[in-house]
Amino acid sequence: MALKAQVLYDFTAEPGNNELTVKEGETITVTNKSIGGGWIEAQNSRGEVGLVPEDYIEVSRSVFDSHAYKSCENSNLSIIHHSPPFHPSLASLVHLSQASNGNDPWSAWNADPSGGTNNNWASNPEGTQTGKSAPDPWGNVSQGHPQAYQGPASLSSCFVFLLSLNMCRFPGFSKSGPELYLLCKQIAKGKDKLSIYAQVGEVGPVWSYPETQIDCIVADPKKGSKMYGLKSYIEYQITPNTTNRPVNHRYKHFDWLYERLLDKFGSAIPIPSLPDKQVTEGRFEEEFIKMRMERLQGWMSRMCRHPVISGSDVFQLFLTYKDEKDWKTGKRKAEKDETVGVMIFTTIEPEAADLDPLEVEQKCEQFSKFTKAMDDSVKEILTVGNEHWKRCTGPLPKEYQRIGKALQNLSTVFTSSGYQGESTLTDALTAAGKTYEEIAQLVAEQPKKDLHFLMETNNEYKGLLGCFPDTIGVHKAAIDKVKEGDKLVAANKITTQDKVAMSKRLSTMSYTLQAEMNHFHSNRIYDYNRVMQQYLEEQVKFYETIAGKLRQAHGQFTTM
Amino acid sequence: MALKAQVLYDFTAEPGNNELTVKEGETITVTNKSIGGGWIEAQNSRGEVGLVPEDYIEVSRSVFDSHAYKSCENSNLSIIHHSPPFHPSLASLVHLSQASNGNDPWSAWNADPSGGTNNNWASNPEGTQTGKSAPDPWGNVSQGHPQAYQGPASLSSCFVFLLSLNMCRFPGFSKSGPELYLLCKQIAKGKDKLSIYAQVGEVGPVWSYPETQIDCIVADPKKGSKMYGLKSYIEYQITPNTTNRPVNHRYKHFDWLYERLLDKFGSAIPIPSLPDKQVTEGRFEEEFIKMRMERLQGWMSRMCRHPVISGSDVFQLFLTYKDEKDWKTGKRKAEKDETVGVMIFTTIEPEAADLDPLEVEQKCEQFSKFTKAMDDSVKEILTVGNEHWKRCTGPLPKEYQRIGKALQNLSTVFTSSGYQGESTLTDALTAAGKTYEEIAQLVAEQPKKDLHFLMETNNEYKGLLGCFPDTIGVHKAAIDKVKEGDKLVAANKITTQDKVAMSKRLSTMSYTLQAEMNHFHSNRIYDYNRVMQQYLEEQVKFYETIAGKLRQAHGQFTTM
Repeated sequence: MALKAQVLYDFTAEPGNNELTVKEGETITVTNKSIGGGWIEAQNSRGEVGLVPEDYIEVSRSVFDSHAYKSCENSNLSIIHHSPPFHPSLASLVHLSQASNGNDPWSAWNADPSGGTNNNWASNPEGTQTGKSAPDPWGNVSQGHPQAYQGPASLSSCFVFLLSLNMCRFPGFSKSGPELYLLCKQIAKGKDKLSIYAQVGEVGPVWSYPETQIDCIVADPKKGSKMYGLKSYIEYQITPNTTNRPVNHRYKHFDWLYERLLDKFGSAIPIPSLPDKQVTEGRFEEEFIKMRMERLQGWMSRMCRHPVISGSDVFQLFLTYKDEKDWKTGKRKAEKDETVGVMIFTTIEPEAADLDPLEVEQKCEQFSKFTKAMDDSVKEILTVGNEHWKRCTGPLPKEYQRIGKALQNLSTVFTSSGYQGESTLTDALTAAGKTYEEIAQLVAEQPKKDLHFLMETNNEYKGLLGCFPDTIGVHKAAIDKVKEGDKLVAANKITTQDKVAMSKRLSTMSYTLQAEMNHFHSNRIYDYNRVMQQYLEEQVKFYETIAGKLRQAHGQFTTM
Repeated sequence: MALKAQVLYDFTAEPGNNELTVKEGETITVTNKSIGGGWIEAQNSRGEVGLVPEDYIEVSRSVFDSHAYKSCENSNLSIIHHSPPFHPSLASLVHLSQASNGNDPWSAWNADPSGGTNNNWASNPEGTQTGKSAPDPWGNVSQGHPQAYQGPASLSSCFVFLLSLNMCRFPGFSKSGPELYLLCKQIAKGKDKLSIYAQVGEVGPVWSYPETQIDCIVADPKKGSKMYGLKSYIEYQITPNTTNRPVNHRYKHFDWLYERLLDKFGSAIPIPSLPDKQVTEGRFEEEFIKMRMERLQGWMSRMCRHPVISGSDVFQLFLTYKDEKDWKTGKRKAEKDETVGVMIFTTIEPEAADLDPLEVEQKCEQFSKFTKAMDDSVKEILTVGNEHWKRCTGPLPKEYQRIGKALQNLSTVFTSSGYQGESTLTDALTAAGKTYEEIAQLVAEQPKKDLHFLMETNNEYKGLLGCFPDTIGVHKAAIDKVKEGDKLVAANKITTQDKVAMSKRLSTMSYTLQAEMNHFHSNRIYDYNRVMQQYLEEQVKFYETIAGKLRQAHGQFTTM
């Protein structure tokens, strides 16, 4: 049977790469779905055959509400992957709740009017088992769950949108999140424990930071190919300062890492989205590769700076795998990790007294307010910066150019006067005119030297801040649940011990949030100091350069 | 009989000055035409009575084509003055042709199809005599011949327009211009002679320059009043460097001087229009008075720099009159001066060999081309400068302000973080934000410090260049007439001696034009050197100030 598919997004073929250009809404026929590497071979109505990213199409008999996730996630080719396209951190919850034991203590809460009834995402439509012994359906998440294109101005906003969408549609399910941890029977032990230190009199709870700060250099993008040259890709070289031994990764590997980190730490630590997803055109253009590399570097550095993330097995695997076999093994292991979603809190051990729930709520409210306010402020800077960018690269240099031309034209006219002793003035006017042309160029090029970094940093923070409502949302849900403690005990839904445990675990969650906020704050202070220094330094140079050029032009005029 | 009048221009009354606000097109009743000082008392349809400038109204039974001169000149109250509103330099020609003798040798040329037939301006509609014994009808030119408002961007363009209008309508009359001189019987002698030196190997013919350069300072504008406080005016103090004794003049005196200079020298020397004519609103506002004073200073300095103008009796009278009586006597004498229009050439004596008519034509063509090209170039600078001015005082500072605000807002948000050790960054961010607000102000104020002068100088030159087509037009007409010499001799219109005299006099005109162009060139070179020096000096200061402020802001950030 010919497998028909709908094209969800425009895709423009890279020349000489065996790709097929398709338009959103077009119907194509899948001619080979076993190409692999995230590609399928398809034929369009004009009979042209070529490769198309499987994320860009939707096979017609898909059971999912394509509209719902089309608005935020690209559809994966569900037929092939059998993986429902929903948010991994929530996916993990299902996974765990199904995996832990069949006796779900919170099934009563799932009776919420809108919850659990029409829940396609909770039940697996293709009937693939999600138990421990079955192949993990999210094993290929990096290919199966691409997110909508997040340009520099909308980093990770999609992630937020998706979560709130899910919460709206499945509130009962969503609420089960924190309870999974608050009332779970086992708490992880041993070497996996993550310590938080509560420093009295200082900033408060902080993560345990490693003695040596991990960092890495993302460099040397190289074009590689596979499938006998059928498919091309860019491979980046990542060199961690710990081993000083480079490893190679394609963008899709970064994406795999991102999905793993989101899956594992997303409930406690905001994981910013990877930059520049869903880029189709110009993927092999030098400018784009350079920009993507710069942003991957920024993303990696931010991950390295986080003590919990940088210390995790999956991150270390990404940075230091020895060979292909090592990578494959580690990959499989990471994909089978069960301590994901809210269960990450089971690994956290605050070295401090339990917190009063009131204080927890207060802190949470403060963080919520702050991140919202900063989000607004960062967006303001981005808006203003964007306008400034446009002016500096558009009308302003054009104006300086016109000033320069006008002065040079005057000089040309003066040269034609036939008057003796004109040349000093005409030379000076020409020089002044050229100076303004040079200023035009300086003005146009300046944003790349300073505003660019200010914008990139603020973009990064916009992305990061976009993750907070999610993290804080999990936290607030936990607070609400703990508040219901007495009622739940009275209704025999939980035991008194459960209630005490819940309160203690909420305290752990709060310490985590506080440590995370403190991590955020210290990074923020460093980042903004650094980027402002850089910005102002370049601005000073810029104005000094112009002043210097004008001083030189000035010297040529004479009123002797 | 109630004298009805049409209002030609909007006029807004200065508060507390007994003036009446009137609108263009409104009909008013003249209640007192003997107010004097250029004012009449009138009543509007609502019964309000007040003073209105007589130049702004037109009494209904005027015989003139009000539309024709409304487009360039304001109507004078013709009923009162009996003075036809036409261009003084042309007026002088009529004056002279009628005054010299009754036997007009060029009457044949006046038979030109469109000339002399419907010529309201040549014949005096009110029958006032224009002969020597009669009162000179142009004696009150300063009040009777105001020109349309010439804002800073259109200095003297009206003058050009008016002349060409006249030429179009009365070509025969216009052509009579140069012939009046080319074929006149008497040539002035003695002390009135103006020498031109032809320097070989250098720039060519130049005016004879005085050993000491006259200059004057226009300062100290004071509000005065007359008619028992009924009318207010501004009086400026003019102090020439020759006597160092200040004299006082109102704007209307400057205007009188302008008209006299135009009348006397306009055919040979471009006389730029006075700045800011026909300003009604805000005449007593400090900003306006300051600007007008600055421009009067510019105009006076330019007149002082011209050896012919600064040495003339009328100019000396204006600068150095001893008392009211001296002024009045000198004024009457100047108004009776007959060596006006093209007759100015009779006073010029080039100390050099006669020029070949071919060379004369070549020179004339060159000057014509150059002044046209410079006019275009100056207008280009004004256009670009105007746009730059708008940007610098409008969107650009607003943008810097918004950048400043955005940084300060971010600082405020950061302050609310509750995180320890935030203050260094927030202080630095606030300082950086304020710096950008300061930059906004610097940007907005800068044009007044530099672009202003560049614009003023170019405006002055635009005005000056606008006078050249007129001066060159007289010259070209003379060339054409001399070319016709043989034909005219053959037709017995002129004698062979006349033809020789014409050629000699054309040579004198050419020397004059060349001397004037050389004067223009040397002034131009000085002026543009000076203004560009000033502009660039201020620009350097501007960029250095900004760089300094940013350097200071930069120093507050730290990545320790």
